[in-house]
Amino acid sequence: MMGIDHIGIAVRDLDGQVSLYRDRLGLAFEGIEEVPAQKVRVAFFAAGSSRIELLASTSPDGPIARHIDKRGEGLHHVAYRVPDIRAAMAEAAAKGFQLIDQEPRPGAHGTLVCFLHPRSTGGVLTELVQHTRSEH
Amino acid sequence: MMGIDHIGIAVRDLDGQVSLYRDRLGLAFEGIEEVPAQKVRVAFFAAGSSRIELLASTSPDGPIARHIDKRGEGLHHVAYRVPDIRAAMAEAAAKGFQLIDQEPRPGAHGTLVCFLHPRSTGGVLTELVQHTRSEH
Repeated sequence: MMGIDHIGIAVRDLDGQVSLYRDRLGLAFEGIEEVPAQKVRVAFFAAGSSRIELLASTSPDGPIARHIDKRGEGLHHVAYRVPDIRAAMAEAAAKGFQLIDQEPRPGAHGTLVCFLHPRSTGGVLTELVQHTRSEH
Repeated sequence: MMGIDHIGIAVRDLDGQVSLYRDRLGLAFEGIEEVPAQKVRVAFFAAGSSRIELLASTSPDGPIARHIDKRGEGLHHVAYRVPDIRAAMAEAAAKGFQLIDQEPRPGAHGTLVCFLHPRSTGGVLTELVQHTRSEH
């Protein structure tokens, strides 16, 4: 059964929101990583067996900047952990989901990821994530 | 440390979306419950140690119907599990979060819940949940 890997939240001010989640909500801050392929800096928080990921754009034309322009800050996507990204993508396509990525692309923490278009998922940007490092 | 209890997703057609999450995404369907206090029917899916909750309004003036009118279907809120809802509410208020509920109110599965206003949480409707039944 697929578990929730993380919830992605679009933010304008990464440092300010890190403080909110770490110091005021009390989640366990795990660090910040830049993901050039998605033009974002990502802050991670452990929350049980899942994570909260805060995403701030590194470029005004990045997907997170465009999302915030259109929809404001807030919940952005939900990611499910899969054992094999290519198998999961093939299955998702066969079941009628619209893949945004035709090939797996690099995510944070050395993951391989693929997004499913919200048009095919009831309005929810949905990510499939394969972890490739042993700590995950 | 707080864990993610569930992710709430606003939907128009509960049965259609149950089919999407159960039959196409492959999550473990756990059932449907009506929560009159929030004018919703809620479908539950296990996803690791968290849940996905699909929320469909039972009334055109319910909070989920109003959310869909304004923002469309999609991600609605994220809920964190807390051991003591009243203590968590007092702490959240002391830390500057704006409580939507001044008293704990009944959620699904016999839980007690309180929502924090997105204005005070970087645009994310945030729920605190205390489970009161032994199976949780």
